[in-house]
Amino acid sequence: MKIVLDAMGGDHAPGVVVQGAVQAVQEYGVEVILVGRESDIQRELAKYDTEGLALSVVHAEQVIEMDEHVDALKRKKDASIRVGMRLVHDGKADAFVSAGNSGAVMASAIFDVRRIRGIKRPALAVYYPASPIPTLLIDNGANTDPKPENLVQFARMGAAYVEKVWGVSNPRVAIVSNGEEADKGNQLVRETFPLLEQSGLNFVGNAEGKDVTKGIANVIVTDGFTGNVMIKLSEGLVSFLARFFKNQLLGGWLNKVALALMLPGLLLALPGFLLLFPTLLRVFKLMDYREYGGAPLLGVDGVVIISHGRSDARAMKNAVRLARDMVEADLVRLLEEGVAASKKGV
Amino acid sequence: MKIVLDAMGGDHAPGVVVQGAVQAVQEYGVEVILVGRESDIQRELAKYDTEGLALSVVHAEQVIEMDEHVDALKRKKDASIRVGMRLVHDGKADAFVSAGNSGAVMASAIFDVRRIRGIKRPALAVYYPASPIPTLLIDNGANTDPKPENLVQFARMGAAYVEKVWGVSNPRVAIVSNGEEADKGNQLVRETFPLLEQSGLNFVGNAEGKDVTKGIANVIVTDGFTGNVMIKLSEGLVSFLARFFKNQLLGGWLNKVALALMLPGLLLALPGFLLLFPTLLRVFKLMDYREYGGAPLLGVDGVVIISHGRSDARAMKNAVRLARDMVEADLVRLLEEGVAASKKGV
Repeated sequence: MKIVLDAMGGDHAPGVVVQGAVQAVQEYGVEVILVGRESDIQRELAKYDTEGLALSVVHAEQVIEMDEHVDALKRKKDASIRVGMRLVHDGKADAFVSAGNSGAVMASAIFDVRRIRGIKRPALAVYYPASPIPTLLIDNGANTDPKPENLVQFARMGAAYVEKVWGVSNPRVAIVSNGEEADKGNQLVRETFPLLEQSGLNFVGNAEGKDVTKGIANVIVTDGFTGNVMIKLSEGLVSFLARFFKNQLLGGWLNKVALALMLPGLLLALPGFLLLFPTLLRVFKLMDYREYGGAPLLGVDGVVIISHGRSDARAMKNAVRLARDMVEADLVRLLEEGVAASKKGV
Repeated sequence: MKIVLDAMGGDHAPGVVVQGAVQAVQEYGVEVILVGRESDIQRELAKYDTEGLALSVVHAEQVIEMDEHVDALKRKKDASIRVGMRLVHDGKADAFVSAGNSGAVMASAIFDVRRIRGIKRPALAVYYPASPIPTLLIDNGANTDPKPENLVQFARMGAAYVEKVWGVSNPRVAIVSNGEEADKGNQLVRETFPLLEQSGLNFVGNAEGKDVTKGIANVIVTDGFTGNVMIKLSEGLVSFLARFFKNQLLGGWLNKVALALMLPGLLLALPGFLLLFPTLLRVFKLMDYREYGGAPLLGVDGVVIISHGRSDARAMKNAVRLARDMVEADLVRLLEEGVAASKKGV
C-alpha cells in the first residue's frame, strides 16, 4: 500500500511531515511517498536513518501557501497537492494526506482525483470524540450551503464509513437541529428530515447540540458551516476549561494557602497519582486532533485525508494510519456501490 | 418594580417558580406577580411565610403545555403566558419571566407585548460563560433563518445590552463563521459581513468556534439555529467531560488501586482541599444555566426573559435578578433610541 504525504503542507512543513512519514513507515509497514521540493525533503530525511525504509520522494516544484486563495490551484499545476493527487488518480498511490491549505486540498481532490460517479458534493467527515459511542460528524466544512439531497448523501457516506472502517453495524444517523421534534430546524433541516426518513438509513431524528455528546447517533449529519463551528467550538471549549481550571486554582492567596496546606498530602499521594497519570492524559487528550490524524474527504474517487494545519509529527503519523484503515476497508469502492444501490433515491 | 412570573411554565412548575419568587422578593426587593391557576399557586405559597412580602397572584385559567404547538396560543387567550404578557403591555408590570414553552413565549411576546418600532425580528440573547471576557451570544434560537439585515439588528441590540446592562463600553462585535478571513462563511455570513463593517459598530470580523472561547468579542452574532446548537453543544460537552473524567477515574482495577494508594495522602490534604472547594464549585458551575437565570428576548417592547425548561428555584430567582437589571438599565427605551439613531442604516 502506497500513501502520499504532502511534504509542503501545514504550518510546520516539511519538518514534521517527514518525521511523521518516517515513523509511519516504521510503525504501520506501509510505503510512503513524500511529495514536494526534493531538496527540502532530502534535507529533512537526512536527520533520520532511513536505510531500508519504504520511503520515496516525488519532486513538486510549486507550493500552495496556507493562506493562498484556492484559485492558485489553476496557476500552480505542479504544486505538491496537485502532483500528489494525480499520483492517486493515476493509480500510482492509494491515498493522499495533507495538512496544507484545506480549501485547496478539497478543490484539488475534486478536480484531480474526481468525484465518485453519482456523488454531487464530497464532504469532510470527522471523528467526534466527546461521545460515549463512536461518532462521526459530517460535513465539517467542505460545503457551507448544501442542499437537502447533499445532506442525504453525506448521511449515506458517513454510515458506510462508520460501518466499514469502524465496524459498527447498522449505524444510527441523526441530523443536527435546534430541537428534538421533527418540525424543528432551519429550512435546510426541515427539508432534509423527510428525505432521511425515507432513505432506508437507520435515521433516529434530530440531534440537539447536547445530544451529540450523549451518543444519540454514530453519524451526525450537518452542513459544513455548522459542523465546522461545532468542531472548533468543542476544541476551544476544552482548552478554555483547562485554562480556566488552572487560573482559578492558582489564582488568589486563599487558593495558594490551600495548595500549600495540601502539599504534604499530595506528596504522600504521589505514587498512586503516577498510576492515575495515563488516565488523566487520556482525559486531556480527548479533544486533541493530533490523536486522530485528520478528516477523510468522502465522495472523491480515492482516499484523501485532510489534517489540521498545526499538525505535528504524531498527527501526520496518525493520519497515515487513518488512510491505511480506509484503504484496507476499500471504502471508495464501497461508497461507489452504496451510491449505485440507492440510485433510485438521492 | 413589578416582575411577572409565569407560575405554570417549566418542567417543575408551579413549585419551583413559586419558591424562586419568594426568594427573589426577599433578596432583591422587587415586587413579583405570579400568574397562573390561583388555587395551584396558593397551595405552593402556603408552604412559605409570605407575610408582608410583595407577592401577588393574578389568575389565568389556561396553560400552554411544554410540548404544545405554538398555535395553541390562538385558542388559549387566557393562558398564563398571554395574561402575563398583557400585564407588561398594559404597563401594569415591568417584566415577564417564563420557563415555559419557549416557542409560545416568543410568539406571545411578539403578539401581546409587540415589537419595538423598527425592529424586524426579536432575538434571544444569552450569556456565554466560557470566555475570558463578558460575552453575549445572539441569536440563541428565535430565528432559524434570518436575513442579513436581521443579523445586523441583532448585533446592534446585543451591543446595546452589553454596554448598558453589563457596563462594557464600545463592545467588540464578531459574527460566527467557519474561517477567520472575510470571505469565509455561508451565504448568510458573507452577505452580512459588509453590512456589519458599515454599521458603525465596533466590528472585529469573523469568529470561528474556537475564537468564541478566546474572548474575541463581547457580542457574538449568529443565526438562531447555529446559536442554539452552540449553546447546547457547550452544555453537553461540559457534562460529557465531567462524566468521562469520573468514569475514567473510577474505571479499571489499576485506577482503584491508585486511588486506594492515594487515600492517606488525600485525607492529609483534606483541610486544604476544603479551602479549594469554592473554586472547584465555580469551575463546575461555569456552564450551569441556573446561575444565569435565562435569556432576554431583545427587540420586544418590554423586558421578557426566557428561562430553561428544567429551571429550579435558584434559576427562577436569578431570572428575576436579570429582569430587574434590564428594567433598571431601561434597556427597552435604549434599544428604541438605538434603532431610531440608526434608521438610515439597517
